Amino acid sequence: MQALLVSNSTNHDEGYLDHCMPAMLELIGERRRLAFVPFALFDREGYAARAADRFGREGLEVRAVTADTTGHDTLRWAEAVFVGGGNTFRLLKTVQEHDLLTTLRQRSRDGLVYMGASAGANLACPTIRTTNDMPIVQPVSFDALGLVPFQINPHYLNPPTGSTHMGETREQRLTEFLEENPTVVVGLREGSWIKVAGAAATLGGLRPALVLKRETAPEERSPGADLSDLL
Amino acid sequence: MQALLVSNSTNHDEGYLDHCMPAMLELIGERRRLAFVPFALFDREGYAARAADRFGREGLEVRAVTADTTGHDTLRWAEAVFVGGGNTFRLLKTVQEHDLLTTLRQRSRDGLVYMGASAGANLACPTIRTTNDMPIVQPVSFDALGLVPFQINPHYLNPPTGSTHMGETREQRLTEFLEENPTVVVGLREGSWIKVAGAAATLGGLRPALVLKRETAPEERSPGADLSDLL
Repeated sequence: MQALLVSNSTNHDEGYLDHCMPAMLELIGERRRLAFVPFALFDREGYAARAADRFGREGLEVRAVTADTTGHDTLRWAEAVFVGGGNTFRLLKTVQEHDLLTTLRQRSRDGLVYMGASAGANLACPTIRTTNDMPIVQPVSFDALGLVPFQINPHYLNPPTGSTHMGETREQRLTEFLEENPTVVVGLREGSWIKVAGAAATLGGLRPALVLKRETAPEERSPGADLSDLL
Repeated sequence: MQALLVSNSTNHDEGYLDHCMPAMLELIGERRRLAFVPFALFDREGYAARAADRFGREGLEVRAVTADTTGHDTLRWAEAVFVGGGNTFRLLKTVQEHDLLTTLRQRSRDGLVYMGASAGANLACPTIRTTNDMPIVQPVSFDALGLVPFQINPHYLNPPTGSTHMGETREQRLTEFLEENPTVVVGLREGSWIKVAGAAATLGGLRPALVLKRETAPEERSPGADLSDLL
């Protein structure tokens, strides 16, 4: 299994996917057929056009996955897939309804290079229970692809200093997750990604990631760190 | 139906429920028997003790609702209920599993004064689809009490100025909700609440609330404003 799980699609003041494109292209290698999954946004066609433009500039042939039988064909045609960010509940519900979840899981275990940003990174985890998104639609289950055995919290950020807002901080939310679930969580800051190649996982990008487990203190891992112990 | 739906349990630099206690006591009136629902937090007993202490100081007799048959008895005994904040998914899952949701709905329509803060305000809405919380556990359905026909987004806050964080703003999240759902949303800022008495609803507290609808621009309502048009 080869995967690139990215915290965010766009860095502040940069273009769409610019910060992680070199890492994506390295993983894609000689492959040229890319499927794009646009279901996390409402405007699927506009989203697909944006992705086709961005990956087209890199010389890739891009087809958008559609929520019908052709979608399965597109996933079988592809050598790599990129699942775009947006709302994780909407994304999961759509791939469940058309059973694309099963095809995506089988193909990813069978050699398809899986790449996802934000909601697309959530989808690679055992469940979507560590998404930041609002539950605007109801999937039949929170179970996701399970390509990796840990959870990712994308767009991770430290508690703001000096805030008077009383809503939970991100770390409080993830602590609540660990009260209810034994699964390890990686808080993946913007600009960062996790690369998985077989039994090896490494942290890419420019920022450290926070690894949260039950019964031990949160642990920072530096850019470039080995994360294979989490697989 | 009488209800007080509060954005947040605690204002910055104030004590637990201090900011909304006068409004709660006005609604409670001569009633003395209060049930407290602690399921949104992991430590139910500690939470129940805190609520018993706080409402006890106001001369109320407090019993915690338990996730068993006695819980139903407690809701039948009570003249008012307060549903505490925490994680909305955990709260909803627990009241679903023990069918306390049905009893709570029936009793609230039958004269029980319903009060809830944060997750407890979400619970009074048609669904929990406008919660800010992380989906750490999976309820069988997102359907909630439906005591009011609109959705509340508690802890509502304006987009931060000067932030370089690329996660969605609250308004973007609620816009995504409206893409998928026709229901009106009230963005309820901290320090604010909605009081419902029969066919009348008013905005209480010190901050304006944002009313979001499909196809019209968001509209600010001032403290004290009539919200009966949303019922």
